[in-house]
Amino acid sequence: MSTDMTTLKGQPLDRPVLDALLRRRLFFTPSFEIYGGTGGLFDYGPPGCSLQANIVDLWRKHFVLEEDMLEVDCTVLTPHEVLKTSGHVDKFADWMCKDPKNGDILRADHFVEDVLEARLKGDKEARGVKVEEVDDPTKKKKRKQKSEAVKLEDAVVQEYEEVLAKIDNYNGAELGELIKKYDLKNPATGVQPSPPVAFNLMFQTSIGPSSNLPGYLRPETAQGQFLNFAKLLEFNQQQMPFASASIGKSYRNEISPRAGLLRVREFLMAEIEHFVDPKGGKKHTKFHEVENIELALLAKDVQLAGKTELKRMTIGEAVRTKVVDNETLGYFIARIFLFLKKIGVDEKKLRFRQHMQNEMAHYATDCWDAELLTSSGWIECVGCADRSAYDLTVHAEKTGAPLLVRERLDEPIIRELWEVDIDKKKFGPQFKKDGKTVEAALEASTQEQREAFSKQLAEKGALDIEVPGVGDGKVQVSKDLVKVEFRKKVENTREYTPNVIEPSFGIGRILYSLIEHSYWTRASDGGDEARSVLSFPPIVAPTKVLIVPLSANKSFKPFIQKLSSKLRKLGISSRIDDSSATIGKRYSRNDELGTPLGITIDFQTVNDSTITLRDRDSTKQVRADEDTIVAAIQSIVDGSKSWKDIEAELPAFEGQEAEVPVR
Amino acid sequence: MSTDMTTLKGQPLDRPVLDALLRRRLFFTPSFEIYGGTGGLFDYGPPGCSLQANIVDLWRKHFVLEEDMLEVDCTVLTPHEVLKTSGHVDKFADWMCKDPKNGDILRADHFVEDVLEARLKGDKEARGVKVEEVDDPTKKKKRKQKSEAVKLEDAVVQEYEEVLAKIDNYNGAELGELIKKYDLKNPATGVQPSPPVAFNLMFQTSIGPSSNLPGYLRPETAQGQFLNFAKLLEFNQQQMPFASASIGKSYRNEISPRAGLLRVREFLMAEIEHFVDPKGGKKHTKFHEVENIELALLAKDVQLAGKTELKRMTIGEAVRTKVVDNETLGYFIARIFLFLKKIGVDEKKLRFRQHMQNEMAHYATDCWDAELLTSSGWIECVGCADRSAYDLTVHAEKTGAPLLVRERLDEPIIRELWEVDIDKKKFGPQFKKDGKTVEAALEASTQEQREAFSKQLAEKGALDIEVPGVGDGKVQVSKDLVKVEFRKKVENTREYTPNVIEPSFGIGRILYSLIEHSYWTRASDGGDEARSVLSFPPIVAPTKVLIVPLSANKSFKPFIQKLSSKLRKLGISSRIDDSSATIGKRYSRNDELGTPLGITIDFQTVNDSTITLRDRDSTKQVRADEDTIVAAIQSIVDGSKSWKDIEAELPAFEGQEAEVPVR
Repeated sequence: MSTDMTTLKGQPLDRPVLDALLRRRLFFTPSFEIYGGTGGLFDYGPPGCSLQANIVDLWRKHFVLEEDMLEVDCTVLTPHEVLKTSGHVDKFADWMCKDPKNGDILRADHFVEDVLEARLKGDKEARGVKVEEVDDPTKKKKRKQKSEAVKLEDAVVQEYEEVLAKIDNYNGAELGELIKKYDLKNPATGVQPSPPVAFNLMFQTSIGPSSNLPGYLRPETAQGQFLNFAKLLEFNQQQMPFASASIGKSYRNEISPRAGLLRVREFLMAEIEHFVDPKGGKKHTKFHEVENIELALLAKDVQLAGKTELKRMTIGEAVRTKVVDNETLGYFIARIFLFLKKIGVDEKKLRFRQHMQNEMAHYATDCWDAELLTSSGWIECVGCADRSAYDLTVHAEKTGAPLLVRERLDEPIIRELWEVDIDKKKFGPQFKKDGKTVEAALEASTQEQREAFSKQLAEKGALDIEVPGVGDGKVQVSKDLVKVEFRKKVENTREYTPNVIEPSFGIGRILYSLIEHSYWTRASDGGDEARSVLSFPPIVAPTKVLIVPLSANKSFKPFIQKLSSKLRKLGISSRIDDSSATIGKRYSRNDELGTPLGITIDFQTVNDSTITLRDRDSTKQVRADEDTIVAAIQSIVDGSKSWKDIEAELPAFEGQEAEVPVR
Repeated sequence: MSTDMTTLKGQPLDRPVLDALLRRRLFFTPSFEIYGGTGGLFDYGPPGCSLQANIVDLWRKHFVLEEDMLEVDCTVLTPHEVLKTSGHVDKFADWMCKDPKNGDILRADHFVEDVLEARLKGDKEARGVKVEEVDDPTKKKKRKQKSEAVKLEDAVVQEYEEVLAKIDNYNGAELGELIKKYDLKNPATGVQPSPPVAFNLMFQTSIGPSSNLPGYLRPETAQGQFLNFAKLLEFNQQQMPFASASIGKSYRNEISPRAGLLRVREFLMAEIEHFVDPKGGKKHTKFHEVENIELALLAKDVQLAGKTELKRMTIGEAVRTKVVDNETLGYFIARIFLFLKKIGVDEKKLRFRQHMQNEMAHYATDCWDAELLTSSGWIECVGCADRSAYDLTVHAEKTGAPLLVRERLDEPIIRELWEVDIDKKKFGPQFKKDGKTVEAALEASTQEQREAFSKQLAEKGALDIEVPGVGDGKVQVSKDLVKVEFRKKVENTREYTPNVIEPSFGIGRILYSLIEHSYWTRASDGGDEARSVLSFPPIVAPTKVLIVPLSANKSFKPFIQKLSSKLRKLGISSRIDDSSATIGKRYSRNDELGTPLGITIDFQTVNDSTITLRDRDSTKQVRADEDTIVAAIQSIVDGSKSWKDIEAELPAFEGQEAEVPVR
């Protein structure tokens, strides 16, 4: 199947060809394949592993080092109680339907989406509109569904499109209603599936030998960071704001994982928890550095209106006009954009989509996803949410741990207020079992009520208070049990629970999208089929340099060894290909691996110690002595120069790129 | 409790002081502590996380890059069938006893060890031998057990000591016998625990929504590498030998995890699977590079004789004398030694201990552990095993996947042999249900039998064969059903299943042991209590440079910023401490973090742009202009120079190390 996605050079993206390349060159491969494979689990081979390591390394430099974040490494195993408090035990679920006929298990939102999309496609066919093998890349995640050419009412088409635009906004009951209302049937059986039920996505296990401590594999790295908040604040010498960061595996027992890296059950995440004072509008001191960055935004109101048009605006304008809630959130959205650009994501295939209200956790203030366009549609690769004070608050309430900031006030705050003192020793004997209820009612009184109490006590020697549930609902408390006074209080410190801005990266999804964004094909000289190229930026490319001796001639060996060890010393990864394939074939094999630079060692090298350097993207070559070439490589790899610069500096070499037979 | 372990500078190691430091500076901390903690789970804070990353980075350079290994990243989730085949489902267990009185769960071998050690200690006390708070650091892992001063017979002492020397060699039944024989009782209850039963150490879960695919968290990274063997060989263009490598988390549901990083339930491993042709004695082409390295070895025969004396010999000699089985195993043992030295392990606290027969898996040919001496005894930190062809063989047999190497022979092998051709079409009708059994008997015949068959066929037109279970056990097969001929066969390829040498590193244990090996204390000038120092080599130190402005004076700010960004550009991690503590205090805080270098910015800096550089270990300082100091830092961090070199090159500075009050 080919899609209407285009490659880096504007050609139609041939997904099966790309998939075959990724398998053949072992970027990744289904885990346990000799055992028949296990859905949603993938192993990374050497190039995938290296690409992943380079992305993670850049992430660490771009975020952790640049912003002095506190990196932590917390355990994946998490006891039940922690995830009960965080809400994951009760709410971290997808809606699942079952086909009563064949037992198929379907993810409800995907099922609705698939069937409606198939109907819309059938409608287009019936109307004679050319359907480009279905895929509309402006739509989100897509799975294939067979369609029949059946024309729909115009109003129905519009209704379906509106449902699809806000598919992430429905809960289980609403999805169930859609299934009934539109009579959606499982194409495999022609039967309507059962109403959606919640399926918790966490993998469960039990910790310790006596099986009495249930636990889960964490679904995100965040909770470990929250639980260590007090220690991290102490480590940071009580300075606010600050961020923690963590890179590690997380787990989600997906109902229906798909082929490829886009929905998997085990994945690498990189998450930041930036802790900020909620007072003062969550300003960020470095916001000015990013405010002029222009982004493609898809705000929630546009989606709720059933539309998907992108709006371009600077992050400064977005924050000023409240499209994005606050500066700190905006700062991280812009930093995410810069990171994705740096690793080589195609800016034209990147948008920031805001979560709709029902899509967000109830406590979240605002949330934006960086979505990358792939042949499977727009894929959420980075989430950036303002989680408010929710997490720290619930864990503090559950455990009693002080997950808060105590800030010394420059100017003490003097407050005057009515206070109630209860003589608890006398309270019990007087009110018996109702004592606590009456106490609570007194303590819950407002400043106005307290002023009135004070008067009553002075005038009558007792106060009357309404306490529902105690006697007839009215209680009298005499002045020997309670005192109400107006007092002046000096507060030298302020206590608050920080809010959390959380940029959260799915490394596998970014890696896969980057591969699609870097992919293109070039016609070969020989006229045979087109050759695949992965144009990774040198900074993330799995290997930086391929070393190719012209032949197996022994005189080349010392040059290969010297060069290879020189590059290793500079921390530049290289590989030697001394196989018997032609030079052209060896280069083109490495174009598939995304290796940006190639060095040929030939007989001229033996004579004058010069070597040629080849650029993957243009296939142009230059020739110079070894030290000059190594310096050129270093400047390209560290990003200080481009190939254009090198081409301008060094003499061109018109050599044997083509089919020189060897040996 | 203090132990008789000594620090780097020969002082007694005060373990509680070190533990307090590691907690206070957030090297690591119990996971979920605000929820009461969960045994055997630890989080790494910023310095621990960075130390771990640096160790892993060096590991990757020392092994993966240096030897062109193929790094892979496989999933932790593993389906049941894979671990059933590998033997883990049936055999990956520890022996567990239960105290019938209070329900205590005890690990049988540790229980036996603890009680016998307590008795030996009691004996020493009774004999009036000074007992240095128990710990004999030549013993392996130790836990505290109260002792009573009871004298034992000399023969009993010797018997106990012999049992302890080979404690890893007992199976469950044998441990049960020891418990009965010596009447070992749980000190907590005075009761003898139940006989040992096997407890599988894998964490179980279920993969997918229908709960029908049981799985485990992997107990080692190795299986994923074995399953990908055929793909990796293909990726390596069929070249042998080669190695794969993997860095990732593994899980073991320990019966009784202890405080600290030495026995935990979730841990980072780095594993190498080196695939080698079993033919020709497993030579290694680079063995000559390491053969003169001298190691401290504890061979299995020494242990079985109840002894623990170390023998120093070169790895070359060890392989020549068959103490170590083969060159490839020996090569990796030596490379492990070099790696541990490079990261800063104290060579005097490192030994290689060979596994005894019962301790090894039945298929292993030889296995050596690199053990590091800590205040908890000798700790296994790296295992280096020859796993023979076991893993590839069992997975190939189970799945039918060809996990083998096909090697083109330079000289074809010509073999002459008797072959049996069966005419299967006629065979069935003749022998009916016994057909397959008779066929199998024919195919199982030896060369000698076949030669006789051939004669019989020629002479009688039929052959007689014994087939137990068919008729009266004798069967006649006529010549129209079978042909037996002597043929010449030319074999152009050789097929073999590679053997695997597996160096396997427990990163957390190495990290903890390294901390103990790097720890010492120095008397402070002020005369107050001793200050702790962690003398990590610059290459693994969490932070390389501390930047300390003399005071909060604004004129220092631009110097701090410039310096900090210059170091970042060079990839050298630094931290700024501009708190109001004295310079001395700030330096000593960073000595605790193991930061090797410190820079002071003072008023002279503002005048002449010179800065001072301080060495953590000697507290000596030099002073020079910024560029010179930065160059000095770089050379120390990349290992090209030592502090001694810098001290010889640059003018000394006798400045305010001490207690200069600031602000």
